[in-house]
Amino acid sequence: MSLESALESLKHGEFVLLFDSAGRENEIDMVVAAEFVTPEHIARMRQNAGGLLCMALEHNFANDLNLTYMHDILSNSTISNKEMIMGLAPYGDHPTFSLYVNHYQTYTGITDKDRALTIKEMANLFNIENKQKKFSSSFKTPGHVPLLIASKGLLSTRQGHTEMSVYLAQIAGLSPITAICEMMDAETYSALSVDKAEKFGKQHGIPLIDGKELLEYAKVH
Amino acid sequence: MSLESALESLKHGEFVLLFDSAGRENEIDMVVAAEFVTPEHIARMRQNAGGLLCMALEHNFANDLNLTYMHDILSNSTISNKEMIMGLAPYGDHPTFSLYVNHYQTYTGITDKDRALTIKEMANLFNIENKQKKFSSSFKTPGHVPLLIASKGLLSTRQGHTEMSVYLAQIAGLSPITAICEMMDAETYSALSVDKAEKFGKQHGIPLIDGKELLEYAKVH
Repeated sequence: MSLESALESLKHGEFVLLFDSAGRENEIDMVVAAEFVTPEHIARMRQNAGGLLCMALEHNFANDLNLTYMHDILSNSTISNKEMIMGLAPYGDHPTFSLYVNHYQTYTGITDKDRALTIKEMANLFNIENKQKKFSSSFKTPGHVPLLIASKGLLSTRQGHTEMSVYLAQIAGLSPITAICEMMDAETYSALSVDKAEKFGKQHGIPLIDGKELLEYAKVH
Repeated sequence: MSLESALESLKHGEFVLLFDSAGRENEIDMVVAAEFVTPEHIARMRQNAGGLLCMALEHNFANDLNLTYMHDILSNSTISNKEMIMGLAPYGDHPTFSLYVNHYQTYTGITDKDRALTIKEMANLFNIENKQKKFSSSFKTPGHVPLLIASKGLLSTRQGHTEMSVYLAQIAGLSPITAICEMMDAETYSALSVDKAEKFGKQHGIPLIDGKELLEYAKVH
């Protein structure tokens, strides 16, 4: 059962490989629960995945922090290039980008230590009372960790890595906040294929979960 | 002469390693002139550098595209977390982030092919007449390539990788637009040291240039 082993890995602060679907981005992300993120996780994601290292936040949590989507921020801003604002991406969904942040105790914001601190401290906000106040006093923007906001209806609204990884953390009983990074392939200069990701997962003891299985599980539960 | 060999490398579409200074970010970026960027450059930057893969634009060029700094966009927006907007980073400078973009012909925007297309097409804007129109009709935001705007006075105003790399491209006689990525160290989880970068440069035939030398050159010329 790949879902079971994926949940076990997440609970132990280990990576999971998450495939969305062949009809969508057709991409595999390395995923780890944000509450467990260490500098080693960051180093492994940039070395073994190589995409944009982002944080996915559950919708209500993002709401509590007064976060909104970047495309909405830009629509309501004074920029003059508004025709550039992305509606739907080529794979059919709106982007989930919000602000890019650094924790105030980081230095450049980009080292493995700095990104781990930013992500860990973001996750720590989930269990405190005055989230918004702590958030706006402890983080700076623009920074080096892009925040992604999961859709309100989660998998029923959007079936992206943002929503799927947050859902995985949720059913693992963890804070619904993840660090994710797309897996790239330097041989094809494209997204890593499922076959290659499976091979990588076997070599490193990292379970791969197919979004299809997750959607089926969500339907039943 | 490290400056001479750095300029030669840039002119041939090859990498240069650029150190700012021990008193600032204390960081080395891999730099390549944007007009030459291929998917292979992207793969090498994410594998050998590992930071945030950005594009640095000369101030006037960014102006021609109606680009402004993200901290100004956010200050003039309706976001409610304005106290988070970064003034000066811990190393003493304002951030140079602007919009994050994808070329409209990309798919996810993050693969080596996609990022190379975005960067190459951005560089191609430099030599056309109606830059702004072409820019706003050919790029989407928020995307996966962060744009950085070099300060108006270039090195006289700010001595960051953004300005130094643009200045390097300028004195090499190229379009003043670069792709840059910070070099990380998975042994220390910090920025790669000058010693290690020198060793890496020697192994791969990539010249390292010290910002100090660049500032001295700029003073004379």
